[in-house]
Amino acid sequence: MEFHDVLRVRILHKPGYLAKLCAAVADVGAMIGDIETVATGGDNSVRDITLEAKDEQTIDRVVEKIKSIAGLDVLSRVDRVFDRHRGGKIQVKSRVPLEKIADLRQIYTPGVARVCRAIQKEPALSRELTWAGRTVAICTNGTRVLGLGDIGVLASLPVMEGKAVLYDRCIGLSAVPILVEAKDAPTFIATVERIAKSFGGIHLEDISAPECFEIEAELDRRLDIPVMHDDRHGTAVAALAAIMGACAQLGRPLERQTIGQIGLGAAGFGIACLARKARAKAVLATDPDPLAQTHADANGIEIADFETVMARADIVVAATGRPGLIGSEMIRKGQVVFALTNPEPEIQPQVALRAGAAFAADGASVNNVLAFPGIFLGALSCGARTISTVMKLAAAQAIVKLTRQSELVPDPLDPAVHRAVATAVAGAARGEGLDRPDRVPPGLTLR
Amino acid sequence: MEFHDVLRVRILHKPGYLAKLCAAVADVGAMIGDIETVATGGDNSVRDITLEAKDEQTIDRVVEKIKSIAGLDVLSRVDRVFDRHRGGKIQVKSRVPLEKIADLRQIYTPGVARVCRAIQKEPALSRELTWAGRTVAICTNGTRVLGLGDIGVLASLPVMEGKAVLYDRCIGLSAVPILVEAKDAPTFIATVERIAKSFGGIHLEDISAPECFEIEAELDRRLDIPVMHDDRHGTAVAALAAIMGACAQLGRPLERQTIGQIGLGAAGFGIACLARKARAKAVLATDPDPLAQTHADANGIEIADFETVMARADIVVAATGRPGLIGSEMIRKGQVVFALTNPEPEIQPQVALRAGAAFAADGASVNNVLAFPGIFLGALSCGARTISTVMKLAAAQAIVKLTRQSELVPDPLDPAVHRAVATAVAGAARGEGLDRPDRVPPGLTLR
Repeated sequence: MEFHDVLRVRILHKPGYLAKLCAAVADVGAMIGDIETVATGGDNSVRDITLEAKDEQTIDRVVEKIKSIAGLDVLSRVDRVFDRHRGGKIQVKSRVPLEKIADLRQIYTPGVARVCRAIQKEPALSRELTWAGRTVAICTNGTRVLGLGDIGVLASLPVMEGKAVLYDRCIGLSAVPILVEAKDAPTFIATVERIAKSFGGIHLEDISAPECFEIEAELDRRLDIPVMHDDRHGTAVAALAAIMGACAQLGRPLERQTIGQIGLGAAGFGIACLARKARAKAVLATDPDPLAQTHADANGIEIADFETVMARADIVVAATGRPGLIGSEMIRKGQVVFALTNPEPEIQPQVALRAGAAFAADGASVNNVLAFPGIFLGALSCGARTISTVMKLAAAQAIVKLTRQSELVPDPLDPAVHRAVATAVAGAARGEGLDRPDRVPPGLTLR
Repeated sequence: MEFHDVLRVRILHKPGYLAKLCAAVADVGAMIGDIETVATGGDNSVRDITLEAKDEQTIDRVVEKIKSIAGLDVLSRVDRVFDRHRGGKIQVKSRVPLEKIADLRQIYTPGVARVCRAIQKEPALSRELTWAGRTVAICTNGTRVLGLGDIGVLASLPVMEGKAVLYDRCIGLSAVPILVEAKDAPTFIATVERIAKSFGGIHLEDISAPECFEIEAELDRRLDIPVMHDDRHGTAVAALAAIMGACAQLGRPLERQTIGQIGLGAAGFGIACLARKARAKAVLATDPDPLAQTHADANGIEIADFETVMARADIVVAATGRPGLIGSEMIRKGQVVFALTNPEPEIQPQVALRAGAAFAADGASVNNVLAFPGIFLGALSCGARTISTVMKLAAAQAIVKLTRQSELVPDPLDPAVHRAVATAVAGAARGEGLDRPDRVPPGLTLR
């Protein structure tokens, strides 16, 4: 249900007319979200009806249908998704007062000169006296945006802004979208390296394989701040948490489960590797790309064809960018199926469940939003210069621990979830001796 | 008065003790700002006294002096400037609600995919549906920070954050500090070019000459968004406004004034060029660098030695980075003197006035904060791809128009000043046919 429109509707103020409206919406296959009364008076009420529909045509049909009914009329129609994006979803705000000239002389010239000199003398002070230590750059080249492919940097910006909204709302870090026009790894790496001092961490996003692997590895090696390709590791952490959650609920130990990974792009490769590190019994994978196969083989992942993976896996994880790839006839009874391609999955969860799956979910619920905010907060809060496998496993375990009995993953809008992930990640970093207490920004320490 | 400390002082609650404290502060040459009563009770009151002093030693002496007086004691001492900088001065905040899963599905996956596709199809929509059109990158390589010289990118960040605070507070644009580790022009240009799609404008800051000239010219040529080196043009606009303001108050037409420019770095060269465009009678300049001289000569600026400039100029403008360069004996009666190096000017305004100057000011009052916020808002609000000389002249005229009779420049913290500058700049751009209405972000149009 990708389309969220709001219809402003005039309704005859007599019993039964709202029911007629609801029936009209249901008739054409759309759903109703919030209903808000804007005005009542005289014979009519005016209400804003939030609709969810799978496409725009469905909403067109809702409008026609409502208009055809006596006592109902559509006054206006707002596409809520576009409305929310208008003017951008983020902004840079001042954290300091600026009311008097005295304020200006403290935060700007001449006062600021002293702060500059202090950092020049002692660079570690930049963590205390600038925003860099609590700011993440979200860097992309737009070559693999959601499941939409190479749509270019500009068209990818709404996704980057969405991530920045989540950084702010989930854990209070600042995040800045950086669109890098460079499809080749060396240019991308050199560009990000040159601007990296502006930030405390580098979140790589929506970069296609195989370039993403070299970019992440090389930036992690060159920079002394944490670098993470979210599509790879954020997704892997969320998927591993869902896998472990399903195992717990089904009473099947992960050590006895075969994971079947469909697609070895950034996400798929990340999931397969992390599942191995978490000691799944076996990890099978399929991907037509010979380079991806070589990579997987070198990491202890067994390569097989699509049918074999579907036939042998206890838990199937698909991350292919190919909506509808998995037919319902391929699902085996009791299988766990995570179809993670966004915005349209390889198989709809309800279809997989009807076909006999014990558990099924898509990429909107098993989503890296559960992982990346807490992982970066955890790393920044202890001054870690890298994000290790142990830190990622700790993140997945924290997510599982917070999952309620009846659910597969916890509520991504619960700040406590992200705090818990961050605390676990920082604890793991300390356990490995990766923390650098002199690099922790004020007020960011977690225990 | 670069130092702003706050002393928490315990004062005997009897008449005369606050007077003793004030006298003690005055005795060592410091000044008092705000006095705030934190607690009263019993025999004593506790108050926070904001001090201004020229150096830390002066404040040390204030503390000693107060402690030596019976009935007074210093409980604690806070460096207000450092305090204001702690944790950084800016943050990225969400502009959209995120309370329900429905919100998440609109601003993030799956809803966001539709917005991405719309921009992919029609790139100009990015101005409407992302933050880029109202966001300026503040790019520096840290090679000429204030008057401090080449202190490196990290130590320059507090200045960049200060500018971002001003963008937010003065005109509501977002600004992002981008530290570019590249001292040579080609690398700097290539790096900024590759990330430029993230932003609606490029504000260049604190880059040394001569690289700054090539960087600005080349980025302006390559990018289809406005690019401006603030030290050069922002300072030039503010200085020209001050020059025109002084002319108006003294009843001397600019057409009959000789401008003497001391120092032809980015700022000095910018001021000299703009003064010529504004039709000053003549522009004389001095700088030891032969390259700067050649540049100036090619732009109709007459080169002379320091003494000649001081002797011939009606209006002296210094931007040298050399505190105290101008001796009081060099000032001629009736001269106008703007000594713009920050944080310490070439000559203190009060010294120049005592030596006979008709007007004198330093870089803290004749500051580019009067210019850059309105210039960028003006350019973005009409979709201009460049910032022309006519737009800069319009900005200076708008500043002069808003200056009250008794002052040299208007209050930089008055939002109306920046709106007026922006409106004038946008009007000038329209007059030159530089506006592109399809590139204007929602809600940004000014008339």
